[in-house]
Amino acid sequence: MSGKAISFARGAPSLDIVDIEGLKAASQAAFEQDPAGLTGYGTSVGYLPLRQWLADKHGVAPENVIVTNGSMQADAFLFDALVSAGDAVIVELPTYDRTLLSLRGRGADVRMVELESDGIDVAGLERLLVTGLRPTLAHIIPNFQNPAGYTLSLPKRKRLLELSREYGFVVFEDDPYVELRFSGESLPTMLSMDPESVVYASSFSKTVAPGIRVGYLVGPREVIAKIEQLATGTYISPNMVAQGIVNQFARSGQIQKSIETVKSALHERATTLSQALRRELPDARFETPEGGYFMWVELPKGTDVNALFAAAAERNVQFVKGTDFVLDGYESSLRLAYSGVTPAEIEEGIGRLAEAYREVTAGVPA
Amino acid sequence: MSGKAISFARGAPSLDIVDIEGLKAASQAAFEQDPAGLTGYGTSVGYLPLRQWLADKHGVAPENVIVTNGSMQADAFLFDALVSAGDAVIVELPTYDRTLLSLRGRGADVRMVELESDGIDVAGLERLLVTGLRPTLAHIIPNFQNPAGYTLSLPKRKRLLELSREYGFVVFEDDPYVELRFSGESLPTMLSMDPESVVYASSFSKTVAPGIRVGYLVGPREVIAKIEQLATGTYISPNMVAQGIVNQFARSGQIQKSIETVKSALHERATTLSQALRRELPDARFETPEGGYFMWVELPKGTDVNALFAAAAERNVQFVKGTDFVLDGYESSLRLAYSGVTPAEIEEGIGRLAEAYREVTAGVPA
Repeated sequence: MSGKAISFARGAPSLDIVDIEGLKAASQAAFEQDPAGLTGYGTSVGYLPLRQWLADKHGVAPENVIVTNGSMQADAFLFDALVSAGDAVIVELPTYDRTLLSLRGRGADVRMVELESDGIDVAGLERLLVTGLRPTLAHIIPNFQNPAGYTLSLPKRKRLLELSREYGFVVFEDDPYVELRFSGESLPTMLSMDPESVVYASSFSKTVAPGIRVGYLVGPREVIAKIEQLATGTYISPNMVAQGIVNQFARSGQIQKSIETVKSALHERATTLSQALRRELPDARFETPEGGYFMWVELPKGTDVNALFAAAAERNVQFVKGTDFVLDGYESSLRLAYSGVTPAEIEEGIGRLAEAYREVTAGVPA
Repeated sequence: MSGKAISFARGAPSLDIVDIEGLKAASQAAFEQDPAGLTGYGTSVGYLPLRQWLADKHGVAPENVIVTNGSMQADAFLFDALVSAGDAVIVELPTYDRTLLSLRGRGADVRMVELESDGIDVAGLERLLVTGLRPTLAHIIPNFQNPAGYTLSLPKRKRLLELSREYGFVVFEDDPYVELRFSGESLPTMLSMDPESVVYASSFSKTVAPGIRVGYLVGPREVIAKIEQLATGTYISPNMVAQGIVNQFARSGQIQKSIETVKSALHERATTLSQALRRELPDARFETPEGGYFMWVELPKGTDVNALFAAAAERNVQFVKGTDFVLDGYESSLRLAYSGVTPAEIEEGIGRLAEAYREVTAGVPA
């Protein structure tokens, strides 16, 4: 092992960009202002003032919103409500590993459609539809995708919604990174473009803190009502204390300060990472992200990322192999998360990664 | 409607016996002492210091404990891990309505065994076993049962464990009320008597507050490990902020003060309720509970509790009908929760209930 551990593996913020003082203040204010609401059982749709805040944010009625114990639980409820074993479900290639696991665990017929640097290949999706595939759902991470960091362009958002209406599938817009754009222009959510075709999910893990475990869904009333039943049967109600703290953090405006802190740090980290890769690992191909936590790196075809993973681990550097985000292939790709590492750690870590790369490629013909 | 609403329906504490100041102090201390632990993703087994505290409390290793988002979620995980469609599962008659729903929703073959005032009829259970029934699980609420308020005697605890070993079923000891004994003598948990035959569940809903949504399971390592997998797939990790607050509340000793407050109030409420029923509704048969939230009331055979429910509602008094806790029968029984009502409300509420009773039984031959 050389030096302290540097992890590009986990999609989580470093502690220095979490607003601990703001959370302390929000928790005091929340207990003071609504002790009954925070400590009582509450309702299965979540803490009502936070549900209202989210409804206002997205321009929908509260009945279109359910607040859950993290967005992963929201995904599980949505899949339980809409996806049966054997149902075809579209996902991006590559996509978030837990979504893949969750869908495969339900026996869904998972169909991966290639992700391009401007989002899912809608022409490829259309070919599948034209030849008869009738998916229940298309799972899309539109902004700063996990693992690729790519963002779905506006024309593709429009086309995807057209296809959804034409072929009758739900677009599951999974959007936890939307607030973390640090360059380029924001795009409208698909939810705002067509609320009847979309179920939208997001969370406060990236804007408040992961440990607060508050996520939510926005969708058609009948879908939300069905999920409300599932939530009652699963846990009666989600965490009122955590949701009360988030509500206070959001309504006091503290969340905007927290988001600015996070974005500024992520911008610096993404820039540092890009520069370090260009300098130390010129074989790497990547797009510099405009937001979010992740960068997707493709190494020359034939590079053994399994061997690179081991050689990096020997140097106390972690990343996630590209193969974790697909059903097969992608043996020469990897995901680098820059959310949990400081610029100095990035410099040091990419130096070590490049050394590992030189080791595993030594003697390999170019 | 006559006067303000008085609810004997909800098994929840009134706000005056929730330690809001203690929770505020615990949340500040928790964020100060372990900001990384509270705000990070944490692990699927729960906040590790709280898991350790619970392991110490029950005299087991941490690997025998998983801390969840409320004990209802713990139940759901346990049923997912151990109960398949068609499996026979023993429950008490009557029992908690959500357990019934949850088991039936999984397609379990639910077998209800009569609950006597000293706990489940173990002789009746043995007859089922002798004649060939092989249940996977027996769900038992040993202390101050919901809905009956009854407690399982020590001889019956021993017998139940003998049957569990002989016939190879798991005893699911569902024990949220154990800390709320206000008279009589505490009995050992079945977990402490035979840790290999028992999976134990409890929660902080009754000792801290329901809105904190922290529950837990203690059981054999292989069962806990299986549930850990389910938890990871469902929500990555439970609420670290809430569990960090509970950990602080527990380790500071504040929880003991909170429990004393709750027990003292429940004792007074149970006593007031018993006296009011004897005075106002002498037809009612019941046992004065030694702890917990609930009293089970049997009215003379033939009493129409549906009509009583409506007549009470007209007087702004709520309770839960006995029929909600069984698959059939029990039309003349009801559950009164005294956890959420003050002694003055109890006096007033039982006066109105007795008036409703006289109305629905007027002209009915004795």
